Amino acid sequence: MAQPVDEFDLISRFFMPLARDMPGAFGLRDDAAVLRPDPGFDLVVSADAIVSGVHFFDTAQPKDIARRGLRVNLSDIAAKGAVPLAYTLTLQLPLTTDEIWLSAFAEGLASDQLEFGLGLLGGDTTHTNGPLSLSINIFGQVPENKMISRSSSCVDDDVYVTGTIGDACLGLALEKGDLDVPTGPERLELAERYLCPQPRVFLGPELLGYASAAADVSDGLIADLGHICDASGLGAEVMFLSVPLSGAARRTVTDNQPLHLSLLAGGDDYEIVFTAPETARDAIEAISQDAGVPITRIGRMIEREIADSGVVVRDDSGNQLEVGNGGYQHFRGFE
Amino acid sequence: MAQPVDEFDLISRFFMPLARDMPGAFGLRDDAAVLRPDPGFDLVVSADAIVSGVHFFDTAQPKDIARRGLRVNLSDIAAKGAVPLAYTLTLQLPLTTDEIWLSAFAEGLASDQLEFGLGLLGGDTTHTNGPLSLSINIFGQVPENKMISRSSSCVDDDVYVTGTIGDACLGLALEKGDLDVPTGPERLELAERYLCPQPRVFLGPELLGYASAAADVSDGLIADLGHICDASGLGAEVMFLSVPLSGAARRTVTDNQPLHLSLLAGGDDYEIVFTAPETARDAIEAISQDAGVPITRIGRMIEREIADSGVVVRDDSGNQLEVGNGGYQHFRGFE
Repeated sequence: MAQPVDEFDLISRFFMPLARDMPGAFGLRDDAAVLRPDPGFDLVVSADAIVSGVHFFDTAQPKDIARRGLRVNLSDIAAKGAVPLAYTLTLQLPLTTDEIWLSAFAEGLASDQLEFGLGLLGGDTTHTNGPLSLSINIFGQVPENKMISRSSSCVDDDVYVTGTIGDACLGLALEKGDLDVPTGPERLELAERYLCPQPRVFLGPELLGYASAAADVSDGLIADLGHICDASGLGAEVMFLSVPLSGAARRTVTDNQPLHLSLLAGGDDYEIVFTAPETARDAIEAISQDAGVPITRIGRMIEREIADSGVVVRDDSGNQLEVGNGGYQHFRGFE
Repeated sequence: MAQPVDEFDLISRFFMPLARDMPGAFGLRDDAAVLRPDPGFDLVVSADAIVSGVHFFDTAQPKDIARRGLRVNLSDIAAKGAVPLAYTLTLQLPLTTDEIWLSAFAEGLASDQLEFGLGLLGGDTTHTNGPLSLSINIFGQVPENKMISRSSSCVDDDVYVTGTIGDACLGLALEKGDLDVPTGPERLELAERYLCPQPRVFLGPELLGYASAAADVSDGLIADLGHICDASGLGAEVMFLSVPLSGAARRTVTDNQPLHLSLLAGGDDYEIVFTAPETARDAIEAISQDAGVPITRIGRMIEREIADSGVVVRDDSGNQLEVGNGGYQHFRGFE
């Protein structure tokens, strides 16, 4: 068994450099940190943990684990319109974790800090006899009282989604060996979409003032739009063929409608699903153009009926389609 | 194997009630929460994780696990002079976790929320194939720029500690069967001190304006005072016989100086070690009286010498005593 790394040594070598630019982190030399949003801003907080064998493969690279941990959290606050500021990290390491692993892990955090503009505020490192896991709390800011919630959608609001849906779940299926349709570069493209989420950090804050409600797509499009429906006390109607797919995904699901439908329930897209009044259409089109990110109108919000599960998916003839279990639950894991 | 509890069901049954009184938690129905300290206050953040088999026994009761998780974090911000506001919880549960366990765990959180005046802001629950663990981020507030840091101690400041030192490490030794000296009620008293930490939540904020530096005693008195020394670039001199012991601890270590000395390095006291100028003596005496908590002057801050490890322990004749390894590291665990 490798020599375990001393906790204090580990913090000073690998984590203190990540806190260098955070004045309130006190160089990780204190019991606590101070966090102060700009005047007139609210602090937005989200927490997500990822566990080896549940949220990522046991064989995953340390850099990819670090980025996944940060990015699933960045995605949560991006959907709220918040700009990231800082994060805390609690890390549970098997005793076999060595310095090479730690160094690559810290490098993954460092490059994402730079890319997304945030710093390490504090945390805790501990040994575990179980699988490696990390728990991240992320902090961002939005103008006071402006956070885009899940609960303020209105009937007749349009429903939009950013980017494309389903690549990550196809990528996961490929990684697991459950699917072997695409080959070559398309295979890599889908796998990459699963392995390295691209949270909509820069797009999210642009939606402030236009989006009436939003959620990030982590559990799956239908499940996350369902969360908006539940919180807003409404239903939603989604036009199946409007849901945007990448070229690779489109070619993978050709002539396989059940597989195509399942993409709407697949997880890990880390796009933003949101609603907005019809009056915002031009503004949203302009935001999409400026950001160079497709934003696609896929349906509308409707009254909720008693017997309704929230989200109804329809084909072009108006027939209701069955997506199946409307949510990927990490609690069950992918084992 | 027990039927695993559905994640959404688990949140709504056991955790939503804990967030009821936190307006920024949105009933745990959103991707993120909003946290807003009072005007003129800074937000203080700390993060600590505890893992079954490392920080508590595999056989620990769910209520005790919940309280330990919250209290080790409450202790961190109490030492900074902060008043608690809220916490986030990420919980990693073995698949065998059942509703009885979850219900008792949530009850432990609920009673501590009431006792210490804070609420649940958000979190994440996930399955693990490893040991149960929880990671808590705690949020408190202090008047702007007033957080008691570790780094602002001065030469000749007095060194104080609240309560008594060493009970928890004796309690742990008793629980592990490494020690069998005390019997009856004293045994229970020491074990309880280990099992249920009593963070100085109400005393900590009273030290604002008097303490020049502070840390909570979690790694052990010598190690945590050492952290103040390191951060302040100073040394400290501790008078061995001034370190306050409970009656039960005093009787346990009678005639056993190595055991007595080891209490200064034992962890899990969750007291506050702090420094203050001589001019604050009367005020600190009054705070102690008002709170009904002993605050004992145990030494003073000195210049740091090159060859010095930071903290020097002396007997009444001025001879230096060897405490041994000055820190209990959870990373190594108690296995």
